[in-house]
Amino acid sequence: MPTRRLAAEQLNKIRALAAFSPDALSSIAYANQEIYLGLVVAGAAGLAYSWPIALAIVGLLAVLALSYAQTIPAYPSGGGSYTVARENLGSTLGLIAAAALLIDYTLTAAVSLTAGVAAIASAFPELWPHRVTLSLVLLVVIALANLRGLRESGTLMAIPVYFFLISYLGMLAVGAVRAMLEGPSSLAAAAPPPTAPLTTFLLMHTFASGCTALTGVEAISNGVPAFREPQIKNAVRTLGVMAVLMGLLFVASIGLTQYFAAIAGPQETILSALARRIVGHGAAYIAVQAGTLAVLAVAANTSFAGFPRLASVLARDRYLPHQFAHLGDRLVYSNGMGVLAALTGVLIVIFSGDSHALIPLFAVGVFLAFTLSQAGMVVHWIRARGPGWRTKATINGLGALTTATALLIIGVSKFLEGAWIVMLLIPVMMLGFHAVRNHYREVARELTLKGLPPSLKPMPQPRVVLPVSGVHRGVVEALRYARSISDRVTAVYVETQPGDADRIRREWESWGQGVPLVVVQSPYRSIIGPFLDFLDETDREHNDGTLATVIMPEFVPARWWQNLLHNQTAWLLRLALTFRRHRQGQVRAIVDVPYHLRE
Amino acid sequence: MPTRRLAAEQLNKIRALAAFSPDALSSIAYANQEIYLGLVVAGAAGLAYSWPIALAIVGLLAVLALSYAQTIPAYPSGGGSYTVARENLGSTLGLIAAAALLIDYTLTAAVSLTAGVAAIASAFPELWPHRVTLSLVLLVVIALANLRGLRESGTLMAIPVYFFLISYLGMLAVGAVRAMLEGPSSLAAAAPPPTAPLTTFLLMHTFASGCTALTGVEAISNGVPAFREPQIKNAVRTLGVMAVLMGLLFVASIGLTQYFAAIAGPQETILSALARRIVGHGAAYIAVQAGTLAVLAVAANTSFAGFPRLASVLARDRYLPHQFAHLGDRLVYSNGMGVLAALTGVLIVIFSGDSHALIPLFAVGVFLAFTLSQAGMVVHWIRARGPGWRTKATINGLGALTTATALLIIGVSKFLEGAWIVMLLIPVMMLGFHAVRNHYREVARELTLKGLPPSLKPMPQPRVVLPVSGVHRGVVEALRYARSISDRVTAVYVETQPGDADRIRREWESWGQGVPLVVVQSPYRSIIGPFLDFLDETDREHNDGTLATVIMPEFVPARWWQNLLHNQTAWLLRLALTFRRHRQGQVRAIVDVPYHLRE
Repeated sequence: MPTRRLAAEQLNKIRALAAFSPDALSSIAYANQEIYLGLVVAGAAGLAYSWPIALAIVGLLAVLALSYAQTIPAYPSGGGSYTVARENLGSTLGLIAAAALLIDYTLTAAVSLTAGVAAIASAFPELWPHRVTLSLVLLVVIALANLRGLRESGTLMAIPVYFFLISYLGMLAVGAVRAMLEGPSSLAAAAPPPTAPLTTFLLMHTFASGCTALTGVEAISNGVPAFREPQIKNAVRTLGVMAVLMGLLFVASIGLTQYFAAIAGPQETILSALARRIVGHGAAYIAVQAGTLAVLAVAANTSFAGFPRLASVLARDRYLPHQFAHLGDRLVYSNGMGVLAALTGVLIVIFSGDSHALIPLFAVGVFLAFTLSQAGMVVHWIRARGPGWRTKATINGLGALTTATALLIIGVSKFLEGAWIVMLLIPVMMLGFHAVRNHYREVARELTLKGLPPSLKPMPQPRVVLPVSGVHRGVVEALRYARSISDRVTAVYVETQPGDADRIRREWESWGQGVPLVVVQSPYRSIIGPFLDFLDETDREHNDGTLATVIMPEFVPARWWQNLLHNQTAWLLRLALTFRRHRQGQVRAIVDVPYHLRE
Repeated sequence: MPTRRLAAEQLNKIRALAAFSPDALSSIAYANQEIYLGLVVAGAAGLAYSWPIALAIVGLLAVLALSYAQTIPAYPSGGGSYTVARENLGSTLGLIAAAALLIDYTLTAAVSLTAGVAAIASAFPELWPHRVTLSLVLLVVIALANLRGLRESGTLMAIPVYFFLISYLGMLAVGAVRAMLEGPSSLAAAAPPPTAPLTTFLLMHTFASGCTALTGVEAISNGVPAFREPQIKNAVRTLGVMAVLMGLLFVASIGLTQYFAAIAGPQETILSALARRIVGHGAAYIAVQAGTLAVLAVAANTSFAGFPRLASVLARDRYLPHQFAHLGDRLVYSNGMGVLAALTGVLIVIFSGDSHALIPLFAVGVFLAFTLSQAGMVVHWIRARGPGWRTKATINGLGALTTATALLIIGVSKFLEGAWIVMLLIPVMMLGFHAVRNHYREVARELTLKGLPPSLKPMPQPRVVLPVSGVHRGVVEALRYARSISDRVTAVYVETQPGDADRIRREWESWGQGVPLVVVQSPYRSIIGPFLDFLDETDREHNDGTLATVIMPEFVPARWWQNLLHNQTAWLLRLALTFRRHRQGQVRAIVDVPYHLRE
């Protein structure tokens, strides 16, 4: 696709909502589950706190949405928390935000896929033991869909997102009607007996897990350039719609769960239990579970949009390898997607496809990035001092304060369960960022032509060494090529069976084109070691500041499988040469001279 | 290790028995299991046939052992069924035997490992769900032990083999004493109710499965060259000892199983049930199970000796890629072992680590090879007509007849259960053998120097194309190298962002050493496609029967991880060039000119 068609790839609001909101909307699935699992251990008394905790989280959501609505017009070129933190708080805090975001994109994909599979396995219990496999299959499907390009993803992803919204809102509506007709159920009667006391720590812990409901709020502010014009207005409006939907789905689900005193079985999610309670076991129930799976699967798409985008920004700033910066032929960031898919797959396998086990790692990074981003916005307004800057700074300051408080609660209450992994990983990633940047800076310094005399002395013809395994047409052609590039050619034969060299020497008389043949003995039947020793020796003898060029005669067979029948020694020799030139700190040119086999 | 030390690597009889008999001795484990599983469906009436079936199989064993004892002096250089069948029955039947043997070596490894794991998982039921993983771990351990060399294997393997023999014979002795003291138990009381009628087909089917007890009898005749002098005498004696041990272990186990009416639980082997019946649950029971696991694990060793040996013979006859013919530096056939390990791993995974599922594939190949080998020996004696040739031919004829009968029974009764896979695989493998041989013959014809004039016209200097990504020291050095091998150099820059080329052109003025720079437009931001198109075009224009040589400037960083930061485009370009030169049926030399980065 030509560069000029880039603009046409941008998204309208309907598609943008489908592309950027699934993470935010679908997080109710695992957040509800976490709140339920956190409180059920304290029995009915614990579960009675579902509603207050949900309200606290929705309060957080309102603050965050307002905060991010201010970020969009201030930073219309995207980049999100990393850009905001870097520009206003300096590169170190910016990189902390970037590391946190990269981790979170990966965890979003892993948690969404595993939670989605749990939703459908709640409906079909025979799938429960195969959750890891199913999650991995879904991951591959999503990754391939994304590699096909952003617009196709937009269309492809819109259907399941709206299917989820309709089926889920429908269920909630039915639930509201039934709630009015039937009245509340008794939690005390339904809840299992408590196995842990109801402590402040338990409530904090549950609140911390429930905060994962807010993941994805920032996605739109990272992706403003993907919106159609007027970009800012469209992005802010989409953010507003998304936040209202998130809040509605979350409080309505939690409220109905508590009102109906829904309790989940051992191989079931709490949302599945709620859906069963409201619409029974039939097609409507299956539709809700399938919709939940669909939106969660699509939520991984947020990561497949965000991760490569952020990696590309970091790569352009030279903190990541520059292949992450390249747009592929199809306008997608293929390398970033590949890395994301691989990391997500590893997480799914390590954590046995269990989203509950992944959550403690998840929340830390999200709230770290939130806090840094909001704090950066406060500095931004103080510096910019545009109209109404005090109000704007206050709103973002409130956002920073609340997310920092949540971060503290999460860090303390989840530390041993996995938050420590992320706290350890972030400094390690920062070391990596700096190592990459230092290396590129050093290479640029080494490669500069400043100080080099423009008229360099021409290089003399290279010394050329040709390993021969026998005397045949392939070798004769390689020898002709060698002589065409240099007058200083030596052929080398490694003798592994005593006496073999005599025949080779005789044949070389006729076919050697006057090039000297050196025979190297190999009492241990290895070909590669003695040949490398010969190279070292001849380089030492000449001592002209260069290493001899090696010609690698290679057979190119007519059919692919015939490669298995040729060139093994050549491949091993090439591998050995690659390592050898590293070790010596010197470089050696290698020439592949192929001989084409017709059959 | 120098070639002259090869002789010292040969094995004495104690070690040879340990190296070549484990397959034969250990096959009682799965053969007993198959006889039990085959008959138990018919209840007590079925299990009463255990003893007659065992006797029939021991009769077969006696005939086979006598037959193979005649093969050893006739073919002291090894090669077994393949050599014998090929020399006496022609190459087609020889290759059938070879294909059958390669399949059987692989199945021996897979069946032995899975049966061994079943033995230890009978003692520790918590291991039962992890049989696949355990089998794979064992496979890796055995493969690595073998890659360390034959002699080390001999010593390493002798300990578990003799541990098994002592513990198992001890258990049988205790069993014999208890049998005399206690008298027989009632099968009718112990056996579960029949679920299938006792038919002739069921007995044939069970006999066919039980015949797997005979696997491994041929191993010694394949491996005569590994014995110490006097090789033939030592090999024949070792075969005799092995056959007597096999028969003793087999009939004694089956006899005691029936005498004590031992019945296995659902997650237990019949040998485990027998051992529990005789020695209880204590240390002695664990020792027997561990010994069974040990000898079965070591049985895979028979394959790791036999498979690479046969592959090497086939490779020397040019039916397999010649890398199977090479002795590695450590006197082991590493390539053959690698292939065997990979195939075995695949079988274990596909068949879920269940030896019972693998057995139907196993027996066909074994008896096919037996029959061809014995039939070949008959022809051998008729042709040789040495002293006593009539007796010898009769013995081998009897062997051929009985094994052919068994083969027929196995083929018919096991066809649908998996024997068909082997029957299909053998012709496929033969096609492969012939394809390899034809290819090598054709290549030899193409490579011959006959008819080529000894004084060839020298090749002109190659046209050289140097792709440049920018103007820096690395490119300047690559350009100097290019000019040192040819006066016909062209540099090519692919412009992905309109306008970039202007800067490159200006810099090239100063640093281009007078070499022309061609700028190629890339509206789609791909670098590789336009560059390949340029190559095609320049080759068409020159039309001199050669393709331009491509110089690949390459960074060699100081530390390995820095490779991730460089050369991606170069690698992709090289990959594309490799495929392109295949498609065109023409060849292109590629020169890697590395630039060493100091940091």
